[in-house]
Amino acid sequence: MEGFRVLEIKKSVFENNDREADKLREQLKKEKTFLLNLMSSPGSGKTSTLKATIAALKDELRIGVMEADIDSDVDAKTIAETGARVIQLHTGGMCHLDAGMTKQGLDGLGTENIDLAILENVGNLVCPAEFDTGAVKNAMILSVPEGHDKPLKYPLMFSICDVLLINKIDVMPYFDFDLEKCREYTTRLNPKIKIIPISARTGEGIDEWTAWLRAQVREWNA
Amino acid sequence: MEGFRVLEIKKSVFENNDREADKLREQLKKEKTFLLNLMSSPGSGKTSTLKATIAALKDELRIGVMEADIDSDVDAKTIAETGARVIQLHTGGMCHLDAGMTKQGLDGLGTENIDLAILENVGNLVCPAEFDTGAVKNAMILSVPEGHDKPLKYPLMFSICDVLLINKIDVMPYFDFDLEKCREYTTRLNPKIKIIPISARTGEGIDEWTAWLRAQVREWNA
Repeated sequence: MEGFRVLEIKKSVFENNDREADKLREQLKKEKTFLLNLMSSPGSGKTSTLKATIAALKDELRIGVMEADIDSDVDAKTIAETGARVIQLHTGGMCHLDAGMTKQGLDGLGTENIDLAILENVGNLVCPAEFDTGAVKNAMILSVPEGHDKPLKYPLMFSICDVLLINKIDVMPYFDFDLEKCREYTTRLNPKIKIIPISARTGEGIDEWTAWLRAQVREWNA
Repeated sequence: MEGFRVLEIKKSVFENNDREADKLREQLKKEKTFLLNLMSSPGSGKTSTLKATIAALKDELRIGVMEADIDSDVDAKTIAETGARVIQLHTGGMCHLDAGMTKQGLDGLGTENIDLAILENVGNLVCPAEFDTGAVKNAMILSVPEGHDKPLKYPLMFSICDVLLINKIDVMPYFDFDLEKCREYTTRLNPKIKIIPISARTGEGIDEWTAWLRAQVREWNA
């Protein structure tokens, strides 16, 4: 037995996604569940960062995870090993999740007794930025090997996020990644964004990231 | 003067993309221009690989490059330094190029006296896989830091490509990347795909890649 189930989510039927997203946030507020939407390119370390996040917060928050992917269930398997409640969502080829699809996922996961629900969105810096999922906060990961010029190329994603995690800083010596330029490009698009360099592998920066997340969850669920 | 221009491409009006793609290939065949569609995640090294490719082939083939991005012109600037003919395409937020958009780009670039035209598609492993651009061959890059499990998560992209370049093999010692598993996952989806490990930075594997590409171009343009 694998400890999670796979849900095939359907394309939403709602015309006004922003309205559905607002309704979902209202529902989450009543249920005292904080929803984080985690986005990034393929392979920048969403699942590893989630594992480190769950390890740091699992004794104080009840955590549920939705792993969205076009196909496969490798991420849900990895998260199930942490003991967190997890569900794998298959998007049927869709490149993003909208609020209606996120609601299907939350219904499948079950939000009762969940303080912090995390949606690991499809690995993609373009389409997920265009759809409000109903999350309370948007987080994104940019990993060092991807390069510091990504805010120039995918400006919408960097504009709509509340926090940017710069992951894989342990391999910084092997790449030409200019952290200050990355900060400058990002804050030019989004002056209020919180930027936290981390390494999901070594644990560097995870304290600062989980302190930020813990504070957001407590404020929302108060 | 920057040595390239920026073209804002419009959403296509054609209903049948596959038919437009076939028409574009027929036109390219007549003009003796080979079109390569290069796809990958953001930051896996499309532009660096292109630079190495141009350096290896520019004395024997006349090369033109279309750099597609949501925004910015950093990639066209980089390619212009190689001396190759280049145009920057802005997709207006679109996450992929279809055949009609590619034709707009080729018209802007000008294919007269071009043996090899290369489209650097938007960095995205999902949407570009769904649209035939009219290219003669599809190439993709997966970089070592992204992980060997990507064929499981983005199966369509790995299924429709003729060649897979596994880039950044110079940093293999710093990542948990299993080359044999990556080959196995990929060939299970696509038994005919050619897989070439490369490092655009050190030049490793570039000879094998450009030998493959040169042979394809010569066959098409014969």
